[in-house]
Amino acid sequence: MKLYGYFRSSAAFRVRIALNLKGISVDHAFRHLRKGEQSTPDYARLNPQKLVPALQLDNGEVLTQSLAIVEYLNEIAPEPPLLPADPVGRARARALALIPACEIHPIQNLRVLGYVREKYGQDEAGVAAWARHWIGTGFEAYESSVAGHSATGMFSHGDRPTLADIALVPQVFNAARFQVDMTRYPTIRRIHEACMKLRAFDLAQPSKQPDAEP
Amino acid sequence: MKLYGYFRSSAAFRVRIALNLKGISVDHAFRHLRKGEQSTPDYARLNPQKLVPALQLDNGEVLTQSLAIVEYLNEIAPEPPLLPADPVGRARARALALIPACEIHPIQNLRVLGYVREKYGQDEAGVAAWARHWIGTGFEAYESSVAGHSATGMFSHGDRPTLADIALVPQVFNAARFQVDMTRYPTIRRIHEACMKLRAFDLAQPSKQPDAEP
Repeated sequence: MKLYGYFRSSAAFRVRIALNLKGISVDHAFRHLRKGEQSTPDYARLNPQKLVPALQLDNGEVLTQSLAIVEYLNEIAPEPPLLPADPVGRARARALALIPACEIHPIQNLRVLGYVREKYGQDEAGVAAWARHWIGTGFEAYESSVAGHSATGMFSHGDRPTLADIALVPQVFNAARFQVDMTRYPTIRRIHEACMKLRAFDLAQPSKQPDAEP
Repeated sequence: MKLYGYFRSSAAFRVRIALNLKGISVDHAFRHLRKGEQSTPDYARLNPQKLVPALQLDNGEVLTQSLAIVEYLNEIAPEPPLLPADPVGRARARALALIPACEIHPIQNLRVLGYVREKYGQDEAGVAAWARHWIGTGFEAYESSVAGHSATGMFSHGDRPTLADIALVPQVFNAARFQVDMTRYPTIRRIHEACMKLRAFDLAQPSKQPDAEP
């Protein structure tokens, strides 16, 4: 399998964590998002959505959208499970994952920030304020969903990392880039720290990728 | 079970479709998003994310995030299946669903439009231009992912409605509200029309809800 990614892409980061947790090694290809390499004709043929990540299977088939890829990996390689065993637990882990994946990341990704910069004449401080606002809104939702909830454990759901943590950790990295005050989200911080002690999360972080830039 | 929704919420619309396809009837409660009824203390206790939909189970447990709720319904009531039988097909249906759910809807939902209006001084035309831009970007991605793909059938994946169609149809309704030119997306239009011939989709549409407004 071959993963098309970009070191700083949250969505590619999620897939890297899942691959590491599953112990699946893949070839890596990189598309430099700031240089627009996700929109070249050859890549658009591979992924018409012009986004990373894309996972190309050995038969040529291409999977897109990080959460769908992680669910696929969890189906073809069930151990260790990335979702709880019970339907209500699975619904909770998926719902938590969808907070960063739907409510935060798409609103503060490169192309939306570019639009805010160009169309609304925002400078870097204005763009960062936009990003911080939506990260804050989403993190408040996440924090209040995990803090004090009986199903929260060492990780977002129980004592093993799940899809929820896989979606959360890359968003915490983004928050750091935008200097979000994380003291407001003590449970997120605690879970993030627990995750980063795991080799699967640590090795997936942007600065440890071959295409990383300072 | 009790579904907290709002007639015009795309995310609640998705859950209504899934419930109808499964033949599951639930009690309905409404939170008027334009009046901010999703942020009242009683509702925030129920769903700290302050979003609709939320599905309260008979044991009091509350499920959030529409795609997680639909996956839950598909697990507790497997027939008719809302996902294909094979992992690659499931990955494709989930990835298609995530285009409206991640790449479009969160960027053009009420609270983001409100921010664009207030912070960037956009009038209704400006706000609509923002919404149309992101709906267009996402629909281009969806259209090019389904048009001519061998797995596309009468619906987005094969000849039965899946999670993909459940996410797509409410977004087409939103597109109509913002007067998006749908002639550019012939496959989406065809799939949408096929869906709307089904009672499950038809009865879930905003105008047929008890809380509908003109």
